[in-house]
Amino acid sequence: MTSLATQPLDPSVGPVELTRQLCNIPSVSGDERAIADAVEAMLRDHAPHLSVTRDGDTIIARTELGRVRRVAIAGHLDTVPINENLPVRDTVDPETGEAMIWGRGTVDMKAGVAVQLVLAAELTDPAVDLTWVWYDHEEVSADLSGLGRAMRNHPALFEADFAILGEPSNGTIEGGCNGTLRARVTMRGKRAHTARSWMGVNAIHRAGALLEKLAAHEPERVVVDGLEYREGLNAVGIEGGVAGNVVPDHCSFLVNYRFAPSRSIDEAAAVVKEFFADADEVEIVDQASGARPGLDAPLAQRFVEAVGTVPTAKLGWTDVARFSALGIPAVNFGPGNPLLAHADDERVAISQIEEGAEALKSWLNGAI
Amino acid sequence: MTSLATQPLDPSVGPVELTRQLCNIPSVSGDERAIADAVEAMLRDHAPHLSVTRDGDTIIARTELGRVRRVAIAGHLDTVPINENLPVRDTVDPETGEAMIWGRGTVDMKAGVAVQLVLAAELTDPAVDLTWVWYDHEEVSADLSGLGRAMRNHPALFEADFAILGEPSNGTIEGGCNGTLRARVTMRGKRAHTARSWMGVNAIHRAGALLEKLAAHEPERVVVDGLEYREGLNAVGIEGGVAGNVVPDHCSFLVNYRFAPSRSIDEAAAVVKEFFADADEVEIVDQASGARPGLDAPLAQRFVEAVGTVPTAKLGWTDVARFSALGIPAVNFGPGNPLLAHADDERVAISQIEEGAEALKSWLNGAI
Repeated sequence: MTSLATQPLDPSVGPVELTRQLCNIPSVSGDERAIADAVEAMLRDHAPHLSVTRDGDTIIARTELGRVRRVAIAGHLDTVPINENLPVRDTVDPETGEAMIWGRGTVDMKAGVAVQLVLAAELTDPAVDLTWVWYDHEEVSADLSGLGRAMRNHPALFEADFAILGEPSNGTIEGGCNGTLRARVTMRGKRAHTARSWMGVNAIHRAGALLEKLAAHEPERVVVDGLEYREGLNAVGIEGGVAGNVVPDHCSFLVNYRFAPSRSIDEAAAVVKEFFADADEVEIVDQASGARPGLDAPLAQRFVEAVGTVPTAKLGWTDVARFSALGIPAVNFGPGNPLLAHADDERVAISQIEEGAEALKSWLNGAI
Repeated sequence: MTSLATQPLDPSVGPVELTRQLCNIPSVSGDERAIADAVEAMLRDHAPHLSVTRDGDTIIARTELGRVRRVAIAGHLDTVPINENLPVRDTVDPETGEAMIWGRGTVDMKAGVAVQLVLAAELTDPAVDLTWVWYDHEEVSADLSGLGRAMRNHPALFEADFAILGEPSNGTIEGGCNGTLRARVTMRGKRAHTARSWMGVNAIHRAGALLEKLAAHEPERVVVDGLEYREGLNAVGIEGGVAGNVVPDHCSFLVNYRFAPSRSIDEAAAVVKEFFADADEVEIVDQASGARPGLDAPLAQRFVEAVGTVPTAKLGWTDVARFSALGIPAVNFGPGNPLLAHADDERVAISQIEEGAEALKSWLNGAI
């Protein structure tokens, strides 16, 4: 795909105009080279104080000021597929009357990247050392993640005391994230012709009690570092059956457990296995740990003060968990309503871009 | 497929040898021409007292003796696919020590057809008029049935007071048959991301209560004309789910209801709809009525005496239901263990062929 924008990126236009320019460089997952090239060129031309490392289409740009603490700030460059929603255009929100930029990537998450790029160029003397990261392949399978790859390839570059991921959070701080785990639960039976069904054992019937238990289950609400995480345990698929005249000997369903970040993956797996103790088999098929919000760290508390709104728990899984896995407390903070992410009428409030840039700048300049 | 047997069929060899010869003419459903040609030629050469009508690969052969009553006797010419089990060979049953004929079609149901062909040629002066029917396409979809087609094309030829279907019944009389009905039971819900599952309604969870009810259900035992029919209500397939991170808005399962022949199709459908009254949708997808055994008819009672064993209920659906639908009481009576039908080691006891031929001959010759 060719770029809609051909001019070099210039951070002096400010985060709002830069949002428009970034969105107009199409960068669907797997096709991030043009935008990564543009970002790298911008840093070379406008941020000579940063030490830049490129890994595929991921760019790591660091200050090396010898500060006591270091903050990592990251955002992904890719978007979900375009659906006749580029180039961006300015619009007014039909519900709130706010001035918006409409189009693919405005929310998830080029407005956040624009804020980061402007501050990366502008903040030559921040109160903490900074590690900026812009990465590829966030909107696809987790094993393709450019952030994960760069962390494996350059672990030393990722040392930090706190991390901020620019995922859309309506300009508030969303702390940590729930973990997610999928398990296949299987019930077995014995085949028989349905004309003589008493000779068999119906595996689909046997699954009924487990589904009933799921239906009656009240997921927990777990408070972690002051934020409430609401869990969820759901069957997301079911299959079973042999033929229209055969008592089935097999029924299995996939469950997705969204668990509070206070639980480890092993603890979450144990919860699921105990819940389905009556099943014939419970197989964990994939999992990703959650991330504690880390809001008890002094650095985080002053960031909360700078932003000025009450932090909430992030429920979906995000890359903050990758920082958390490195022992770095991490939060989500970015412009845009997360409910509009991936929507065809994705749009971001211009005020959220401006306010987000101000809050982050104020904190990094000395409120830390 | 070419025939393994090339010599013309001769009923004077008796039903045992004729069983071997019929089996060695391969006749998998859809490929019955060779065997139908052989049967038609045999009737022309050895049963000039019969009036023969051919419809596709179905043959109807009738006496026209002006008797007060008429009995229809039918058997299908096709088999399920051959699996290295032709030509037939003589063997000894490993469990019972009985002399057997082993190979495809021995049980289902060329031994029965052989008994019928021998008697069709031999009985020139039976106590009742006889309508012999040998037909194609029994082992496949019901709408392909040669018997059904011939009944539609030649209704007058099928008038009778009683019918015997030569399906394997271990040489005993199996009366009537259960009906069968399939219904799709659907539960609906509301999609949501599993990270916010409380915003949705899980359709798979909702199905749990219905499956629990099925698991707890004790099917009825219904006595019809003195025979006990055991019913069955089974989920035979289930599906549901959207994606691994979506609360599913749809779950449906297929149930198979095997119902006693005292119930009409409409009554059976009402039973299923009432059972699943809590479902969002219950759709009847196919059905076939059962057949009453008709053992209360005097003709049938004397047949029971001639066979000399206690009749039992036929549980699976068979073509007796087609006669029953025409108002003709019908029973299954044929050599062979029905549990060996379709098995790769299908085999029939020679004694059952001989005894079956004797019982049928004795009854038709005057015990009626």
